Amino acid sequence: MLPDGCVRAPETRYLSEPRGRWDGLAGAVALPRNTDDVATILRACHTARVAVVPYGGGTGLVGGQITPDGPAPLLLSLERMTAIRAVHPSENVLVAEAGAILTDVQSAAEANGRLFPLSLASEGSARIGGLLATNAGGVNVLRYGNARDLVLGLEAVMPDGSIWHGLKRLRKDNTGYDLRHLLLGSEGTLGVITAASLRLFPRNQSEGAAMLVVTSPKAALDLLALAQEQLSGMISGFELIGGMGLAFLAETMPQVRQPFARAPDWMVLLDLGAPAGVDLATLMERVLTDAMEHGLVTDGLIAQNAAQRAEFWRLRESIPEANRHIGAVSSHDISLPLSELPGFIDRAGPELARIGDFRINCFGHLGDGNLHYNVFPVPGRSRADHEHQRNAIKTCVHDLVHQMGGSVSAEHGIGRLKVADLERYGDPVKLAAMRAIKTALDPAGIMNPGAVLRRV
Amino acid sequence: MLPDGCVRAPETRYLSEPRGRWDGLAGAVALPRNTDDVATILRACHTARVAVVPYGGGTGLVGGQITPDGPAPLLLSLERMTAIRAVHPSENVLVAEAGAILTDVQSAAEANGRLFPLSLASEGSARIGGLLATNAGGVNVLRYGNARDLVLGLEAVMPDGSIWHGLKRLRKDNTGYDLRHLLLGSEGTLGVITAASLRLFPRNQSEGAAMLVVTSPKAALDLLALAQEQLSGMISGFELIGGMGLAFLAETMPQVRQPFARAPDWMVLLDLGAPAGVDLATLMERVLTDAMEHGLVTDGLIAQNAAQRAEFWRLRESIPEANRHIGAVSSHDISLPLSELPGFIDRAGPELARIGDFRINCFGHLGDGNLHYNVFPVPGRSRADHEHQRNAIKTCVHDLVHQMGGSVSAEHGIGRLKVADLERYGDPVKLAAMRAIKTALDPAGIMNPGAVLRRV
Ligand SMILES: Cc1cc2nc3c(=O)[nH]c(=O)nc-3n(C[C@H](O)[C@H](O)[C@H](O)COP(=O)(O)OP(=O)(O)OC[C@H]3O[C@@H](n4cnc5c(N)ncnc54)[C@H](O)[C@@H]3O)c2cc1C
Ligand SMILES: Cc1cc2nc3c(=O)[nH]c(=O)nc-3n(C[C@H](O)[C@H](O)[C@H](O)COP(=O)(O)OP(=O)(O)OC[C@H]3O[C@@H](n4cnc5c(N)ncnc54)[C@H](O)[C@@H]3O)c2cc1C
Repeated sequence: MLPDGCVRAPETRYLSEPRGRWDGLAGAVALPRNTDDVATILRACHTARVAVVPYGGGTGLVGGQITPDGPAPLLLSLERMTAIRAVHPSENVLVAEAGAILTDVQSAAEANGRLFPLSLASEGSARIGGLLATNAGGVNVLRYGNARDLVLGLEAVMPDGSIWHGLKRLRKDNTGYDLRHLLLGSEGTLGVITAASLRLFPRNQSEGAAMLVVTSPKAALDLLALAQEQLSGMISGFELIGGMGLAFLAETMPQVRQPFARAPDWMVLLDLGAPAGVDLATLMERVLTDAMEHGLVTDGLIAQNAAQRAEFWRLRESIPEANRHIGAVSSHDISLPLSELPGFIDRAGPELARIGDFRINCFGHLGDGNLHYNVFPVPGRSRADHEHQRNAIKTCVHDLVHQMGGSVSAEHGIGRLKVADLERYGDPVKLAAMRAIKTALDPAGIMNPGAVLRRV
Repeated sequence: MLPDGCVRAPETRYLSEPRGRWDGLAGAVALPRNTDDVATILRACHTARVAVVPYGGGTGLVGGQITPDGPAPLLLSLERMTAIRAVHPSENVLVAEAGAILTDVQSAAEANGRLFPLSLASEGSARIGGLLATNAGGVNVLRYGNARDLVLGLEAVMPDGSIWHGLKRLRKDNTGYDLRHLLLGSEGTLGVITAASLRLFPRNQSEGAAMLVVTSPKAALDLLALAQEQLSGMISGFELIGGMGLAFLAETMPQVRQPFARAPDWMVLLDLGAPAGVDLATLMERVLTDAMEHGLVTDGLIAQNAAQRAEFWRLRESIPEANRHIGAVSSHDISLPLSELPGFIDRAGPELARIGDFRINCFGHLGDGNLHYNVFPVPGRSRADHEHQRNAIKTCVHDLVHQMGGSVSAEHGIGRLKVADLERYGDPVKLAAMRAIKTALDPAGIMNPGAVLRRV
């Protein structure tokens, strides 16, 4: 039904994933050129009861794009649908196809004097469809929201091959159930996103950043409250960095310059952006003075220029790489109610110590209550030595998070990695509703079977 | 199953609605004291196949809370569930029961030094459950989003009486389909919202407002773009006021002070709020100077104090009342892509003139692309004279809106008033998905039957 070249044998690159945890199966890869092609493919698969796994940039961290077992599915890669269909600068709207790579969308916005604020370390490979299907987070959530908050409208192909033309460019539209938010974050299990109308923002005219030594995670939260009071609407990022992260950097990436001679236990990267008329430097200095007076901050560096700000961010973004060099036993993408965060950090360490001797690197998007809480072997041991403890570690961390009202997947989604976690921690009534919705919209069960919800 | 007094004969106040368009039917009114009571009621109604209509403040403008025909339902009023369950100022979170009145939630936030930004003219009566079930808008959407954007978590009773405990206080939580956004805006057809965790914000330390004469709706939009460039994140409101609105005020409410000696054709109310360190007056003056240089603004008044700012808002909020005095033939709550707004205003007048001689009062939340486009008789005629044209007027306006990519219900929802509009203008694939979801979650069809979707 499609021209030559639209369906191919799967190259190996489609069959691995960034964690290196699974190898995938695929009967073939479909490379639709446009939305009608996607519809043709889904109609045929629906009729033939062939499983379809949507594929974006392949950067997902929970295996949603990978099928390790069961009948080999058809991978449906959006990589040929990369058009920026339209930019409406006066509306602060951009319409992109699902295969557009995030950096290309950012550039198109910038070329029109606007900002598309979604930003994360995988932005050079992740595609809009994948980012929206996983409701990705990243470093600007505090100010601009998660991926779902940046979407005004969607075009999508439903599991039976019908096309939903929902590419509205409206800020207000109360005409029925919000199908948009249902597809966003559904990880390819309810349909294929083919295009989205996205919100743009004015670009910041001045930007600033500071690296601040805080006395504790609680002090970091008090600093956040103080900064929000004085800089409301201008805080783009608020990242927590732990001493262990700095030690890992010193150990594995000595080329990354450390900001303080003596590595502090806890540090915050505060990132700001403001329109032209605002004197950011003065505002920031006032916050810091107040924070020091309150004993929250004991030392700090303010970026003197864009290069220094970039250097601060480079340090922050090098931590995951340092983590990879050390080799985590278990990594956790968790969120907590803000006021529970310090208590969680206090309690998790001792509870893990009962399982064994570990190093913990706790860092992340503190402003969103989102920590990457990663557990490593002590020097002289390797992750292989702890293979048998991995489940116990994960359960220990996740049980505590759940008990404190948190989430065991803040940013990355459920995919295949966390299906059992969703069953263990998810509200049973929500799960029942999810299953009912899945059956209602995908009665043949062809969309990404085994992701999010267990195969039935 | 419930103690005495929890189920009563319906008082007449439950059976009318603000438009005076319909009288309602109800077999009884249930007044649950808590979430368990709501669950008991829904379980019983589910078993007995009795229709349930959730009832908040009764201020809805599309008849979602009213049953004019069919079997008389049980009204389920949340009016006894008014607790503010918790305030977490350090997290910027407040947890309220569904029956809490909006002004009480605003006050609780304020008492904790925070802002709950949802604000609309019905705030003294509308209840949180109703506001969320309709995804209400109001005057602060430009800056803080619609009601749905202010919700972190929900507690709700599903149509079978099961309780979803989803009162999370998290900014990031990617654990499965977003049931929250599905219930938000579903107008009581998928379940009963019993409580919500709501986002709070820092209060503005300085506020300002200006009434500006603009040369056209297009100039108003250019002014918005300019203001966003220079005041990004500080614009709380951007309201368009047309000359007809001022004329109606002069005619029916002469006590409302008019800001300009000669009533302009188009005016904008610009409302600002900023944290303490920002010199709002200087920023605002610069925007106005630039806008005048660009020929967008020809005259203007800047509020010199809080009383003057309140006076500006009083004028804006008196327009609906003046409209009621005049008596509209047909009112339309529409939204358009921002760049289509001026074209819509240009085209709609002449198209309506082909139906008859009318006065048009076009005003509203311009910053959100949301206009209240209301059609009135010319002096000497009454709305009764145009009764036979009402449908033609509505269809003329809605067809044009739809053709230009807009929405025929920006803020108010579908309820019972716009079921046929949804069928006419809604995307058929979205409608099919909505019906499938409704059947999946409410197989007995007891939840608010006939609202949003036609009874089957
Ligand atoms: C180095 C690195 C850093 C990262 N940092 C972050 C971070 O800071 N924050 C964060 O949230 N995430 C982060 N991630 C993970 C993040 O989820 C992905 O980067 C991104 O969202 C996935 O996009 P993708 O196009 O690669 O999707 P894929 O990996 O191809 O797919 C992900 C899921 O979406 C589905 N999908 C893909 N395209 C579509 C479509 N068009 N329609 C429907 N479903 C579709 C797939 O079936 C799969 O279930 C990171 C990943 C890496 C490797
Ligand atoms: C003077 C006036 C000004 C207004 N201004 C605006 C405005 O600026 N912007 C705007 O968006 N709207 C406005 N509205 C309409 C707006 O929709 C309502 O004010 C409000 O959202 C409805 O809240 P309520 O508690 O009165 O709900 P109700 O009218 O009681 O119910 C509305 C709908 O929600 C359902 N519902 C109620 N409670 C629950 C619950 N707990 N769980 C599930 N479903 C429930 C009902 O079944 C019904 O379908 C205005 C109305 C008036 C009268």
